Amino acid sequence: MSNVDSGFATPLEPTLLDQARRVKLAARQLALASTAQKNEALELCAVLLSERADSILAANEVDVAYARSVATSVPVIDRLVLNLSRIDSMAKGLRDVAALPDPVGEITEGWVRPNGLHIRKVRVPLGVVGIIYENRPNVTSDAAALCLKSGNAAFLRGSSGAINSNLAISGVLSEGLAKSGLPSAAVMLVRDTSRESANSFMKLRGYIDCLIPRGGPSLVSAIVENATVPYVIDGDGNCHIYVDETANLDQAVEIIVNAKVQRPSVCNAVETILLHESVTESLLPRLEDRMPTVEFRADALSRRYLKSSVAATEEDYASEFLDLILAVKSVAGLDEAIEHIGKYGSGHSEAIITNDYSASKRFVAEVDAAAVLVNASTRFVDGGEVGFGAEIGISTQKLHARGPMGLRELTTEKFVIEGDGQVRV
Amino acid sequence: MSNVDSGFATPLEPTLLDQARRVKLAARQLALASTAQKNEALELCAVLLSERADSILAANEVDVAYARSVATSVPVIDRLVLNLSRIDSMAKGLRDVAALPDPVGEITEGWVRPNGLHIRKVRVPLGVVGIIYENRPNVTSDAAALCLKSGNAAFLRGSSGAINSNLAISGVLSEGLAKSGLPSAAVMLVRDTSRESANSFMKLRGYIDCLIPRGGPSLVSAIVENATVPYVIDGDGNCHIYVDETANLDQAVEIIVNAKVQRPSVCNAVETILLHESVTESLLPRLEDRMPTVEFRADALSRRYLKSSVAATEEDYASEFLDLILAVKSVAGLDEAIEHIGKYGSGHSEAIITNDYSASKRFVAEVDAAAVLVNASTRFVDGGEVGFGAEIGISTQKLHARGPMGLRELTTEKFVIEGDGQVRV
Repeated sequence: MSNVDSGFATPLEPTLLDQARRVKLAARQLALASTAQKNEALELCAVLLSERADSILAANEVDVAYARSVATSVPVIDRLVLNLSRIDSMAKGLRDVAALPDPVGEITEGWVRPNGLHIRKVRVPLGVVGIIYENRPNVTSDAAALCLKSGNAAFLRGSSGAINSNLAISGVLSEGLAKSGLPSAAVMLVRDTSRESANSFMKLRGYIDCLIPRGGPSLVSAIVENATVPYVIDGDGNCHIYVDETANLDQAVEIIVNAKVQRPSVCNAVETILLHESVTESLLPRLEDRMPTVEFRADALSRRYLKSSVAATEEDYASEFLDLILAVKSVAGLDEAIEHIGKYGSGHSEAIITNDYSASKRFVAEVDAAAVLVNASTRFVDGGEVGFGAEIGISTQKLHARGPMGLRELTTEKFVIEGDGQVRV
Repeated sequence: MSNVDSGFATPLEPTLLDQARRVKLAARQLALASTAQKNEALELCAVLLSERADSILAANEVDVAYARSVATSVPVIDRLVLNLSRIDSMAKGLRDVAALPDPVGEITEGWVRPNGLHIRKVRVPLGVVGIIYENRPNVTSDAAALCLKSGNAAFLRGSSGAINSNLAISGVLSEGLAKSGLPSAAVMLVRDTSRESANSFMKLRGYIDCLIPRGGPSLVSAIVENATVPYVIDGDGNCHIYVDETANLDQAVEIIVNAKVQRPSVCNAVETILLHESVTESLLPRLEDRMPTVEFRADALSRRYLKSSVAATEEDYASEFLDLILAVKSVAGLDEAIEHIGKYGSGHSEAIITNDYSASKRFVAEVDAAAVLVNASTRFVDGGEVGFGAEIGISTQKLHARGPMGLRELTTEKFVIEGDGQVRV
């Protein structure tokens, strides 16, 4: 498809399309920046974030005051509020990303053809990475850092409720970029936070090379239905742990407790445990004892061994609770567990606790998910925990990236073919 | 997202959704097949294609007779017609794919975390690969072979004009699968070839894991606008060759002639040549002499050195002619060439002919395309020519796969995490 577009008059306030053009141009320049230049820019941005902390906090106060005035819920306000320690974390985040290896330029493969052509595949930036996100001003800085390090311009579409905070932070980042000689438009915040602008944003084909939504199911389905730009879905996690007949039950208890309560609000927390019938009786009382704040929604057999529980419905098994609720189902064995996961799983993270070699191999092979785990907590399915240093999200789709996404997943590859006059016969 | 779906009554004629369910189930079984099983199935299909040649040819005659009756163009009929030699080629294609290495199970990376977790990334099939294609019955066999070898079920949506041929061929392939003990539904041809069915096909989210359109710009734009399933765009190629000041002009002539006339109807043929002003005078008469059947559409400077040419328009530079037409532009140097390609290129294949080290490096770095070539014909950007053995298409998108796509591009990866009781702290 050609990149040619039609004429356009610039109004005084930049429109979305105007911003899109500027960020696209900036991406072309940024793609050629050296690792040293990008690292220097990230360091300058970190310094400036601390220096400009007062003005960022002042802008944040406007957003927080508004949120309070419209009776926003406490957890949402908690995510919105900035303070000096959170600004320090953002600055540290920039420096942490600067310390990571630069994926750009890596030769992932190379070979020579019989006719003497030298072929290599080289990692290059995607171009413009679009991010749609909710009331978390720290995402402005975290996402921009990962985009910049991987040579991509960051086109950020935050929520209206955090617009003042986001403008302050993105302004500082643009200033840091300019100071380092890189294009300030390589971090671009969408000013129009109307619902229509989100829709227009996801149709900016030719301007956004990859869109990553960070939000709930309604945002994801809006993108699946409407986006014309390429995207990577950071989807929901209806994660399971299956406890096999041969499981070490001490391990099973620790893993389930960790996966459920360590941070219940995240996508890699467990939502349903599937228990081999032979372990139900010994395991459930211990789990109930260790997780007194968790509500158990269980099948009839399991409920016999729980002091307090409610009957699980089909909908419970299909739900990502993101809360202190755990669905429980007793199963006859591995086949039934795999079948259940195939029916209800969201393709995120699925674990088996077992000491049976064949069962572990079958589970790993037959369960279709971004990550399958043996004898470990589902909470490890995370960019930091697998060793990527940072993550831009966890993909539940199969194309491009699957599972935790780090810097490398923000790149594409280019074939470079070098010859000395070869023609095809 | 959950895979649960609502109830559904099966009519006598299988509906699209009914077919989708069967192919999805088949994909789960096929994903677990060994390389030996898949190769045996491909061999059985090859044998059966030859054995059933008469019935395939009879079915094809029905399609060809209909095409002639509605005065279909000669090239389209030529692509539709089967004969014994074309059936032999299809059978050979199946055996060639059987001989290629199986990508499934390849461990692309593996490492151990400080906490003792063993992590590996393993190639696994995508699941169901959907292909929408035009009046070419051989695609039924070629695409199915690549899908099967990579462990994917092939969900094929051919054109109405080839429905009898396609049914005959897919029937033979299903029979071969069944004979080898693999699910016959792993090759599934859509029976409803109405326009509405194409639209429904691209919305089968949860049933199609990757859709690959093989068709023109109108099909591609229908997919970009309407598809809710993941897709890989096999897009158009407005390819350029830039001849630098320092080019070996003998090489330049051979490469341009090859890239333009060897097979002008394909996406990796050259459409525009960009000539450094200093080479225009010596190069153009030689090109005109070597390509008497080609129409030159050129800028004013270039036209001075052409005996017969027409003035190039903006539209010419933006066009993928797929014909014996060549747009020509003289440029002041590398900057202008890169600028022109950035404006008009479709991100497919772009070449420079040069003997200047810095120019070659800059071109490779600054041109944003699936493939960049130095001193070689754009015609080499092809799965077979780069060494993949076969190709399912050439991606012009940046996500998942970019450039020629072989068996490996029909897979995704799964994180496998093995522990001994680790929990996250």
